[in-house]
Amino acid sequence: MYIDCKTIAKSIDEETLNLSSRVKPKLVSFAINPDESTLAYLRNQQKKAKALNIEHEILVFESVETFQEKLLKACNDDTVHGIFVAHPLPAGVDELKIACLINPDKDVEGRNPVNLGRLMYGEETFAPCTAAAVVEILTRTTDLTGKNAVILGRSNTVGLPLSVMLLRRDRSATVTVCHTKTRDIGEMTARADIIVVAVGKANFLKPHMVREGAIVIDVGINVVNDRIVGDVDPEVANRATLTPVPGGVGVVTTAILMNRVARIASRGDRF
Amino acid sequence: MYIDCKTIAKSIDEETLNLSSRVKPKLVSFAINPDESTLAYLRNQQKKAKALNIEHEILVFESVETFQEKLLKACNDDTVHGIFVAHPLPAGVDELKIACLINPDKDVEGRNPVNLGRLMYGEETFAPCTAAAVVEILTRTTDLTGKNAVILGRSNTVGLPLSVMLLRRDRSATVTVCHTKTRDIGEMTARADIIVVAVGKANFLKPHMVREGAIVIDVGINVVNDRIVGDVDPEVANRATLTPVPGGVGVVTTAILMNRVARIASRGDRF
Repeated sequence: MYIDCKTIAKSIDEETLNLSSRVKPKLVSFAINPDESTLAYLRNQQKKAKALNIEHEILVFESVETFQEKLLKACNDDTVHGIFVAHPLPAGVDELKIACLINPDKDVEGRNPVNLGRLMYGEETFAPCTAAAVVEILTRTTDLTGKNAVILGRSNTVGLPLSVMLLRRDRSATVTVCHTKTRDIGEMTARADIIVVAVGKANFLKPHMVREGAIVIDVGINVVNDRIVGDVDPEVANRATLTPVPGGVGVVTTAILMNRVARIASRGDRF
Repeated sequence: MYIDCKTIAKSIDEETLNLSSRVKPKLVSFAINPDESTLAYLRNQQKKAKALNIEHEILVFESVETFQEKLLKACNDDTVHGIFVAHPLPAGVDELKIACLINPDKDVEGRNPVNLGRLMYGEETFAPCTAAAVVEILTRTTDLTGKNAVILGRSNTVGLPLSVMLLRRDRSATVTVCHTKTRDIGEMTARADIIVVAVGKANFLKPHMVREGAIVIDVGINVVNDRIVGDVDPEVANRATLTPVPGGVGVVTTAILMNRVARIASRGDRF
């Protein structure tokens, strides 16, 4: 069985359109020496922005210095409401240093450490978008209280912030975070009511690792033989409730990103 | 069996004394309408500071406004290296707002969200002291790689930051965070190699909840019949390696706090 993520994204998009009809939201996306797939991603983002009446600018740089200069300019530009920095950054660039440069109030992706730290106070206005998308899908699908949630992956965009968010008192899942050094991942997932997979390996989670009736959120986007596949073997859908790939977490993530840009533009200041 | 935490604290104190002999470190501790136990804690902190050649000032306030004013003054005072704010804050005071006022570079307790968020980037200079003490004790006691660590408690001073820290790549424990809504805490702890208990309930963790040979870190400080007891039933020491209370996590926490003040004074700027 599959979760209908497109309908979730659509309801978020409706709110966004409602907001963007009254203001002029603008998102600026930065990229340093992007590869073809990053550029394709940004073009797709731009298409989505236009459909939601959000102005979108893509700025591509060859050097980190020029990039930083323009980034700071956008941070201080009142007509820019959201700032997106394409990842991965080039080798040798300090990810934390760049994240600290992003104005926290325009940090629609939730990369600035101050926005990550706020999660521990229960404040999620600028939670990382993908983690926020997973929370959105889960809370629309089930009551999380006391459920055993197992997260595969410990990135600062998904696994770590998501674990903090699922523990928040109004959700109160019991949360386990697994990774490459975990002794027996299959044993962990087999006991879980909820499994979130963000490992970046095609078809990693197999049916025998999932218990009947579990909810499985597939965060993976992998290209195999020119087709996009997730981190979860599609056979899992026969015993669990699964998010599809494509058309799953990704579409909700983009909807949340655009919604934030519109909300920042609407409020005019920190909210 | 007990872990000798006093020896760990002593080795940290030696480094602190070495640093403080060459500079004039100063810690300022703030309290708003403190009760007797908070005042006793601060006097004890002051005694410890003096023993380590750290100047220590206690500022007690009746109103939040005056407190905020003096807090900001201390943040901008170059002769002040560390700022401590006694908790819990009075009812109605916004904890996050106060935390955001503390200069991140003097935030020796690790309360400012920017310092909490940095943990997700692996940067732990200003990790919450108690969580840092638990990490210090654990890494001196065992190799964490692939171990199943179960944390009881989800506060932003222990459970949440500690979970992120134990997941860091150089430690790589598999981490589960449990709390009041967890379905069967005993089942979770019985499978754990490492248990960290921060629930604030005297003798909460019983021997049958602990597997033979586990390592148990007791973060609790409870007063029962005028005696200080931890969150772990002392009988647990017969089957596991346990930190004592008193003289366990608390003494290492204070040692780390003082060490940070001395380090900030020694470096003169952000490190």
